[in-house]
Amino acid sequence: MSRLANGVRSFSSTASSLLADAAATSRSVVQPSSFQVFRDVPSLRQLRHQLLKNERTVGFVPTMGALHEGHLSLIREAARENTDIFVSIYVNPTQFGVNEDLSSYPRTWDSDVEKLEKLNEELGRAGSPGSGQITAIFAPTSKVMYPTLPPSSEIDGQGSFVTITPLSSKLEGGSRPVFFRGVATVCMKLFNATTPDRVYFGQKDVQQTVIIKRMVQDFLLGIEVRIVSTSREADGLALSSRNVYLGDRRRAVGLTIYKSLKAAEDAYTSGKTSRADILGAARAITDRVLNEQKALGPSERALFEVDYISLADPDTLDELDLVDPAKGGVLSAALKMAPLEENKPGEECGLGDGKVPVRLIDNLILQPRA
Amino acid sequence: MSRLANGVRSFSSTASSLLADAAATSRSVVQPSSFQVFRDVPSLRQLRHQLLKNERTVGFVPTMGALHEGHLSLIREAARENTDIFVSIYVNPTQFGVNEDLSSYPRTWDSDVEKLEKLNEELGRAGSPGSGQITAIFAPTSKVMYPTLPPSSEIDGQGSFVTITPLSSKLEGGSRPVFFRGVATVCMKLFNATTPDRVYFGQKDVQQTVIIKRMVQDFLLGIEVRIVSTSREADGLALSSRNVYLGDRRRAVGLTIYKSLKAAEDAYTSGKTSRADILGAARAITDRVLNEQKALGPSERALFEVDYISLADPDTLDELDLVDPAKGGVLSAALKMAPLEENKPGEECGLGDGKVPVRLIDNLILQPRA
Repeated sequence: MSRLANGVRSFSSTASSLLADAAATSRSVVQPSSFQVFRDVPSLRQLRHQLLKNERTVGFVPTMGALHEGHLSLIREAARENTDIFVSIYVNPTQFGVNEDLSSYPRTWDSDVEKLEKLNEELGRAGSPGSGQITAIFAPTSKVMYPTLPPSSEIDGQGSFVTITPLSSKLEGGSRPVFFRGVATVCMKLFNATTPDRVYFGQKDVQQTVIIKRMVQDFLLGIEVRIVSTSREADGLALSSRNVYLGDRRRAVGLTIYKSLKAAEDAYTSGKTSRADILGAARAITDRVLNEQKALGPSERALFEVDYISLADPDTLDELDLVDPAKGGVLSAALKMAPLEENKPGEECGLGDGKVPVRLIDNLILQPRA
Repeated sequence: MSRLANGVRSFSSTASSLLADAAATSRSVVQPSSFQVFRDVPSLRQLRHQLLKNERTVGFVPTMGALHEGHLSLIREAARENTDIFVSIYVNPTQFGVNEDLSSYPRTWDSDVEKLEKLNEELGRAGSPGSGQITAIFAPTSKVMYPTLPPSSEIDGQGSFVTITPLSSKLEGGSRPVFFRGVATVCMKLFNATTPDRVYFGQKDVQQTVIIKRMVQDFLLGIEVRIVSTSREADGLALSSRNVYLGDRRRAVGLTIYKSLKAAEDAYTSGKTSRADILGAARAITDRVLNEQKALGPSERALFEVDYISLADPDTLDELDLVDPAKGGVLSAALKMAPLEENKPGEECGLGDGKVPVRLIDNLILQPRA
């Protein structure tokens, strides 16, 4: 994790002849490396062109850093399907509302890079035919990503944006009106900078997967969008960069989001198809847990608010009154964990000491029934 | 102008080995041809990939058909700088407002193709080293360009759009609020479908050139935007597909737009820098001509309305009170030619017999002074 020269940062590791090629065409690479870090677009494009000429394929994994096992599973999937993997690390300001958690979003560059180096070793060891490795990290500045106007998080802010409506205003878009404009905009830029063959997104952000698929289709991007199933802890909690803020108490109660969706899925699996039956099963869980928590004292409880529990069409995200078993549906929920009211002595309260509100989202796909 | 098979229409002419290659990989090409017409994206992408592998370069000229000498000059410029030229012909619905002239926009497919075939022969004859030729015409259907939702021309319509603000709301955007959203959106799609090295736009649509340059920069498109100077008739009238609707009488009066801009340019050239002096010179012309016309009878006159005359910054299109001679400026105007009130016997009144209102635009660049 050494030199920074002309926007390219290089890491020591084994060289590949291809990277030596790329290095030869770019004065700025100091030494052969396991992967390069690009801070700007032109040198990345040069590498991409080189790869294209050599008939190599690029799988792209966009991230905002704070990497966890969920991200690594995206990269492993990309490694199975491409010779080269590009990972971007960029906390995109335009997808955070003006009152949202941009400043508190975890930034963990050193440990992110360490995880990627380790994963690359693992991918190299596996040695299975066709197994790819991480070739490039794209870690642009905001000036690179938003070169003309300062990036705006205002709903009526000026700038160059991609909007995907009405998909963007549903579900998460209800409480976060600029979120998917920001996501679509930054993904369009990232896709253009990396021109991948395939992009990888986690099922966990289900609305994002639907919107990105729509954007790729509508804008004729010619990229394959691959969705990787949600990585979960042993008890079912979906991995998320924001989980570090939970702490033990809120983590235990936060699991309610998964349990409630699971109950709704069970209702569908057991033959129910009506919204009332399926979402009723979820609501029964969240209502019960919330009542239990309210009965506890401030140093024992973790309060939360259900933002939404949704049963929607998998393509349009329109709410469903009835699931067509031939098509299935998307169960999704958002749950706001309030800050702890009172910490107990010695309690593990997570990063920020339990004071950071945490919004959890999760979803399950109701598969079509045979 | 013969076969239409699997979305590819082919024209008879001499074959190139490269096209034979592309044909071999695409079942749908019936015979070698001077250029192919693509109605869908996948086969076009296949050709593009083939060209890329062969280190050939693509210049892209987007058009809405109704080709005239102005378009041909874009293609000639592209031929000087690229081995291959892609031309798109697509009348994009989303850039026409709900009350605008989408349905009356001239559609002249057969003569367009004839012009392109002729131009390709000319480009072949020239035989100068590195001189390119037209390889592909992209003539998509609206279902190809807008695959999910029907294309919307409503300002608050649903869909997948690119918005470039505040540039899009200035000048032309003032009277045509959806225009540049439509232009940016369709160009993003076309650029993605053709992935050109360079794109060619005419200086005539100056706001379009500024917005496309901004889009390419903001979305990291990695395409060179080339602006080609406005093609004009001998007397100065800017070529436009809409000119066919003018007829002799409105054409003569319509020339006022050019004369007024020229007067303003002369004011700048002679040392004036204030808005009042520069635009005053233009207004003097339009006022005089309009008064002259009003004094004539309905069968003699051609009435018009000045939509705007603008003196703006070349990058932001902000109106200028004073031109910085080191930076120059953009003089632009829009003029609405009303339908003729009364035709004279035997008068040449243009396509639509003088009944189609015609909105003329034109501009001149005030060059920085040494």
